Amino acid sequence: MNTLKNDLFLRACKREKIERTPIWIMRQAGRYLPEYRAVRKKADFLTMCKTPELAAEVTLQPIDLIGVDAAIIFSDILVIPEAMGMHLEMHEGRGPVFPSPIRTLEDLNNLKTIDPFADLNYVLDAVSLTKRELNDRVPLIGFSGSPWTLLTYMVEGSGSKNFANVKKMIYNNPSLAHAILEKLSSAISVYLSAKIEAGANAVQIFDTWGGILSQDDYQEFSLQYVEKIISEITRKDEPVIYFPKGVHSNLDKLANCGADVLGLDWTMDLGKVRSEVGDKVALQGNMDPTVLYGTDEVIKKNALKTLKSFGNGSGHVFNLGHGILPDIPPSNAKALVNFIKENSQQFHS
Amino acid sequence: MNTLKNDLFLRACKREKIERTPIWIMRQAGRYLPEYRAVRKKADFLTMCKTPELAAEVTLQPIDLIGVDAAIIFSDILVIPEAMGMHLEMHEGRGPVFPSPIRTLEDLNNLKTIDPFADLNYVLDAVSLTKRELNDRVPLIGFSGSPWTLLTYMVEGSGSKNFANVKKMIYNNPSLAHAILEKLSSAISVYLSAKIEAGANAVQIFDTWGGILSQDDYQEFSLQYVEKIISEITRKDEPVIYFPKGVHSNLDKLANCGADVLGLDWTMDLGKVRSEVGDKVALQGNMDPTVLYGTDEVIKKNALKTLKSFGNGSGHVFNLGHGILPDIPPSNAKALVNFIKENSQQFHS
Repeated sequence: MNTLKNDLFLRACKREKIERTPIWIMRQAGRYLPEYRAVRKKADFLTMCKTPELAAEVTLQPIDLIGVDAAIIFSDILVIPEAMGMHLEMHEGRGPVFPSPIRTLEDLNNLKTIDPFADLNYVLDAVSLTKRELNDRVPLIGFSGSPWTLLTYMVEGSGSKNFANVKKMIYNNPSLAHAILEKLSSAISVYLSAKIEAGANAVQIFDTWGGILSQDDYQEFSLQYVEKIISEITRKDEPVIYFPKGVHSNLDKLANCGADVLGLDWTMDLGKVRSEVGDKVALQGNMDPTVLYGTDEVIKKNALKTLKSFGNGSGHVFNLGHGILPDIPPSNAKALVNFIKENSQQFHS
Repeated sequence: MNTLKNDLFLRACKREKIERTPIWIMRQAGRYLPEYRAVRKKADFLTMCKTPELAAEVTLQPIDLIGVDAAIIFSDILVIPEAMGMHLEMHEGRGPVFPSPIRTLEDLNNLKTIDPFADLNYVLDAVSLTKRELNDRVPLIGFSGSPWTLLTYMVEGSGSKNFANVKKMIYNNPSLAHAILEKLSSAISVYLSAKIEAGANAVQIFDTWGGILSQDDYQEFSLQYVEKIISEITRKDEPVIYFPKGVHSNLDKLANCGADVLGLDWTMDLGKVRSEVGDKVALQGNMDPTVLYGTDEVIKKNALKTLKSFGNGSGHVFNLGHGILPDIPPSNAKALVNFIKENSQQFHS
């Protein structure tokens, strides 16, 4: 039974009639908040992920400080490969690094099959604790990377410009790539199901690197696994959001992948996508994150443009088209949230 | 009068009937060739650009070594901002750097209006010299960056992940951005006209960063200036190729921007684009550059897929969807070229 005081986000995901457009912001629990940086000073990034009290603390910050309509559990998509046995380092500035990336069948065989209740219990504990502390104020979102996006990190080992290693694998050894993707898919299904069991009201699958693939390769190495995961997640009516950043093709297939909501990056035309997918899915997005560098006037103008682009009716979850940038003033994020709360009623009359 | 021994490329650009599909490769005069690296050992990158003999030498290398159907003059898109007075440094690994990027109206006022015959005469000399040494074997392509792509480099100053500075400019000071774009557009029109006068048989406009903009912003800050330039270039029948990397929207507007050829990156569906733009423009592209990491079999399979995707008839210039990567074996590039030469006749019967 839904006892949430504010369930606008969930109702928008299900395209139910609502009073105004809900908003949350990707990376809303992050470095742009001084309160986050204060916690981060006390513990490194992975320690924060692995300490439920700290993860819960920063997850709640944007609810109190910015006023968003949903919380998203503080964690990282790379906790899965780490739980599978890959050594993960987080380097300030350089990003995550796997010093021993996966390149061979032997590397694959060394990856252990994870049980999220044992291997990722710290995430589940963080979800339960956050749920308690949220006290039903807003829904809580759990998330995972897509198999393809995780594979990309696991094979490249660190930030990449051309993704040469993972591309070499899919072209020269596609069966190895598929075997790793299979293993990841099973892990992700179980992981997201466990998050829902622990209290997550919705889950989002981040496919950050889907857009580096040709259309056929995207279908073969990414989308088919996402579809499999979505069909396997154990859930009641918790919506699944799929965010295929940089993927602009096959909207019809995307709309039929099983997700309740498609996340769009800022290069997509929200209105055009809506007219193409009809009422098959709700849409999330998609203001350019750099708009938040702008003046109050610029932020309001572009936020209104995004609302207008979606148009009248339900099925829109306002968000940026990618994560909030670390040097955005929190007051600008708050101005955006307030604007959406105060000016989106007109699209739901 | 066209005295070229091989003018397949030019005829494909004009969608004339031809015997087979022509091929050239973006960055074909580049680091993947040991013969290029031998020249590069003797002179730094900018010295190579500014020494017509060296520029001509490396421009000709892929004609002799790889067998492509067109030459593209060795140069860099950043010679224009440098000629305008910006100090440019080329850092191995890190890429180009402008230590004093453009941020203010005063910075704009310090940019000089260039006369390509005085300020970029070394490029024009390189074009003339290359034309002589090519001896009409294949056509020669000249190129420029688009105003938006040049602005991005000039404002960011160096490689950027989020393009925060140029985005701040377009959102908070759009009139300054437009003033710089105007100045760049005039310079580029004159520059490309001068290249054609010096002997270039075609010109390509690289819009490497068009895809980081929302659709409205792309229209306002990039495409309208490209249209202006194309309409202003002095030319007889030399085709203009426009390559808006990462831009996947408004195909109809792209097809009507005045370019004879649209370059597509590898995330586009060549066949679908062809069916949408009809016979308004020829198409160039678009095999994933990382396919060239593959075995001979992988390369042939994907090359054939690209040919099939375009389908029967003229109007296709084979190319990669982005520049060839520096660690590709030259024999793989040659295998691709040979395959296209030997297997594309069936699409022109």
